[in-house]
Amino acid sequence: MTVQDNKKKRAANAALRYIEDGMVVGLGTGTTVLYLLQAIAASKINILGVTTSKKTTVICQQLGIKVTDIDDVDHIDVTIDGADEVDTYMNGIKGGGAALLMEKIVAKNSNKNIWIVDDSKVHDTLGTFPLPVEVIPYGSGRLLRKFEANDFNPVLRVDQNHQPIITDSGHYIIDLHLGDIINPQTLADYLENQVGIVEHGLFVDIVDIIIIGGDSVTLKERQTQLK
Amino acid sequence: MTVQDNKKKRAANAALRYIEDGMVVGLGTGTTVLYLLQAIAASKINILGVTTSKKTTVICQQLGIKVTDIDDVDHIDVTIDGADEVDTYMNGIKGGGAALLMEKIVAKNSNKNIWIVDDSKVHDTLGTFPLPVEVIPYGSGRLLRKFEANDFNPVLRVDQNHQPIITDSGHYIIDLHLGDIINPQTLADYLENQVGIVEHGLFVDIVDIIIIGGDSVTLKERQTQLK
Repeated sequence: MTVQDNKKKRAANAALRYIEDGMVVGLGTGTTVLYLLQAIAASKINILGVTTSKKTTVICQQLGIKVTDIDDVDHIDVTIDGADEVDTYMNGIKGGGAALLMEKIVAKNSNKNIWIVDDSKVHDTLGTFPLPVEVIPYGSGRLLRKFEANDFNPVLRVDQNHQPIITDSGHYIIDLHLGDIINPQTLADYLENQVGIVEHGLFVDIVDIIIIGGDSVTLKERQTQLK
Repeated sequence: MTVQDNKKKRAANAALRYIEDGMVVGLGTGTTVLYLLQAIAASKINILGVTTSKKTTVICQQLGIKVTDIDDVDHIDVTIDGADEVDTYMNGIKGGGAALLMEKIVAKNSNKNIWIVDDSKVHDTLGTFPLPVEVIPYGSGRLLRKFEANDFNPVLRVDQNHQPIITDSGHYIIDLHLGDIINPQTLADYLENQVGIVEHGLFVDIVDIIIIGGDSVTLKERQTQLK
């Protein structure tokens, strides 16, 4: 296990304290979440999981974690997910694993959101990590050209056969290599107003707690009175 | 042919004057557009069509109208489409035929937009016609409940076997029975900010010319200097 894997595992284990027997828990996607799922399975805490990808559903079934459809629960107590990058204001970029749409749907429907990350994900501002944008295949070439005109350095995400990867919902992913994102909210508003964009990987004002795994574990908590 | 069919045909025929040999023409979807496609085929004007639905593509192939993919043209000269409802400010509701997403992608990428409607579609304000919203199937039950809480009177569109209809892009349609839409732009902004909504059927500030078929043909043109 690498040093970074250890840090991911440390963050994942620290998230267990927010989960109680009988809770409905949104379950993210990715390598850090995998450690969380293993920790939940080992802990014998009895939860009902709402997953954010087909991949996570499969892992839950293998580990014996009960899962249900988001439309079959009347609330989600807490969602625990990874993030590809987080800034000092607790905004984040997600979607490296192409699951951003379902991750955002689950997050927006959760009473509380917790991210678990290793310390390499923490930057002052966002933009080092490419920003994934989920788009309708029809007309995606025009969106690419529009992004190019805006100097967003867009790259259509492809698989090893150079074919566009298809998300769980049947869309493409375009990664924007932005460098520095000066104003995440302005960029989010711009992207939400474009026709053909289903969703983007900017998560602004969504997370309540970030658990950062380093040599030890650091906790960042949103000042809830200001939320 | 009913009186209303005649009016649709009258509007469709009047749109021919905006089409010239060699143009790239966006082609809408629906019963009024069918008359347009027949008129184009009969006129022998040679266009390259960019379609807004699989249905329209099939009809074009049957009628011998050349079609291409939106990503294979560098511009669209003009798009001609129907509308389910238009108001006095030249806003409209589209999507009765479940093609609103591709219709909006084509419209937003066109140099000029023309709608052809019969006079039954013209109202002072929008909202008599249900507003279609195209949504991601995952989590759509939660969106339905949210719409209900907002008194939007949402109805998931189903087929004759009571199964949700699936759009060309793999999504569901929820029809909002709103009665009167006081501020279309405010409602559009609200809908665009909801996660899980791919697109909505409000077309605000998009159309340039509306051709209304009644006992005669009426033309409404946007004051372009104010657009």
